[in-house]
Amino acid sequence: MALFKTITVIGSGLIGSSVLRAIKASGACEKLIAIDANMDVCARVRALGLADMITADLHKGIMDADCVVLATPLGSYQSIMEECGPLLKSGAIVTDVGSVKQHVLDTLSPLLPESVHLIPAHPIAGHHKSGPEAGFTELFQERWCIITPPENADIRALEKITALWEAFGAKIEIMDAKHHDMVLGITSHLPHLIAYTIVDTATQLEDELKSEVIQFSAGGFQDFTRIAASDPTMWRDVFLTNKDAVLDILQRFTEDLTSLQKSIRRGDGKHIFEVFSRTRDIRKAVADLGASAIPAPIDVMEEDMKEK
Amino acid sequence: MALFKTITVIGSGLIGSSVLRAIKASGACEKLIAIDANMDVCARVRALGLADMITADLHKGIMDADCVVLATPLGSYQSIMEECGPLLKSGAIVTDVGSVKQHVLDTLSPLLPESVHLIPAHPIAGHHKSGPEAGFTELFQERWCIITPPENADIRALEKITALWEAFGAKIEIMDAKHHDMVLGITSHLPHLIAYTIVDTATQLEDELKSEVIQFSAGGFQDFTRIAASDPTMWRDVFLTNKDAVLDILQRFTEDLTSLQKSIRRGDGKHIFEVFSRTRDIRKAVADLGASAIPAPIDVMEEDMKEK
Repeated sequence: MALFKTITVIGSGLIGSSVLRAIKASGACEKLIAIDANMDVCARVRALGLADMITADLHKGIMDADCVVLATPLGSYQSIMEECGPLLKSGAIVTDVGSVKQHVLDTLSPLLPESVHLIPAHPIAGHHKSGPEAGFTELFQERWCIITPPENADIRALEKITALWEAFGAKIEIMDAKHHDMVLGITSHLPHLIAYTIVDTATQLEDELKSEVIQFSAGGFQDFTRIAASDPTMWRDVFLTNKDAVLDILQRFTEDLTSLQKSIRRGDGKHIFEVFSRTRDIRKAVADLGASAIPAPIDVMEEDMKEK
Repeated sequence: MALFKTITVIGSGLIGSSVLRAIKASGACEKLIAIDANMDVCARVRALGLADMITADLHKGIMDADCVVLATPLGSYQSIMEECGPLLKSGAIVTDVGSVKQHVLDTLSPLLPESVHLIPAHPIAGHHKSGPEAGFTELFQERWCIITPPENADIRALEKITALWEAFGAKIEIMDAKHHDMVLGITSHLPHLIAYTIVDTATQLEDELKSEVIQFSAGGFQDFTRIAASDPTMWRDVFLTNKDAVLDILQRFTEDLTSLQKSIRRGDGKHIFEVFSRTRDIRKAVADLGASAIPAPIDVMEEDMKEK
């Protein structure tokens, strides 16, 4: 028996379209509805055959939903739910895939009728490619999905959202929303901020130097360009909605960088060596964990760029 | 006909052992000598059959050399050449594979007899693994090798070092040493410094948070741990010997990061979006260049860690 009668996925980008595909593949619902505000994207989702009904009309798309999955940039959550929250069916479950979780609880809770359950989630899976063509069914397999239920969450609703992600092949972790935002601030948000910054620093170089930086990008810089190839709207919203955790961890990073800078200026090789050596434990632990996120090969990136 | 009668490679780590292998494969000399100060490494090089003669004795290893390739950490160049510079054959060519080039010219030039030619080089190729077992013949194929001859370099010597790297399959670029150090400061040295720093910041977290950072490292952080898995001695020496360029580019990076930090604090989404979008040109250019450095898969790293 299907987990839900009707699921509506709002947003058909990389993650939204992968959720659509994973729902279809797992048979998690009887009727699958895709909503996207962009008519062009709707046409592409239709051509890909990703849902039973595809619409740009929020009202039409959500009124029968037993489960709504928000897969749009975090900055759009408020206006979407202001518009369609009051129309949701009694007993419906609202979930999402956003990279920041406390903000989702704070924003959505007051906009939902009491009879609607909110169970936010965050699959730790992604790719620097975007758009419905970039999604794929297996994106969530063997990846973590962190679920951050509010206090006093409805147990049955939590079980159903857990079952949904398990049906996609994900491993589940239940976590406090604020704590999630700190962990992801370190593992994901800060690395993206740094990568965007270093590529931006290179962008501002004189033309000749810039072309050489591109030519000889093999030595580390290339990895940063790949990380910084992520969707700008999505990432802008991450930094606007996880401000406190990002500023906290950025402060720690800056202190550590300043300390290394001072050692370089003073020629303090002992301190530099100590830092470069003590990072080994974490590298080993990450390696031991195995291949949960093998970086995308560069040819995928080339394709990505051709599309634009 | 072989390019050189006798080549001596000093240092048998990842790069040195790959040079040994590439020399053998290309038939670039009649007699190949490997020197390593570490007796254990000498035994491993012997077991791998990488050279015709393997010795820890600097004098014995260099006295017949027509070409000497320095492949040890930059910090060791001075003492090595103080010891063996006066013993070099007249007409011999000294080259190296170090990641910083002005320092090599400044350090080695005064230590070499006038009859010996200095032609520094830097192959833009590497791996986070180290040791003679990690090297491989194809490491330099289709990679750039930047050669930074001193002013008034001997043309014949420059031609021979160019031919040597071409025999390994490398693409050659001739560059001013100081300019090389600036370009690589951006493409390689700064990214490594940042990666070491961010992993170090994580190292200092409370234990529980640290274990979660490791568990959920898929979102960007994992890439940084791979970059920061490089040899600490080699990288310490890079920062000590390329101080000026690194501090210059680090200053620019810090200014850009501070500006983004301010935008996050103020909630200035417009500026954040602008930065995240304008990096697109460089990403595209790097992608168009193709796959000159595909990141090593994580399973290689696992093997690496098991060895230690």
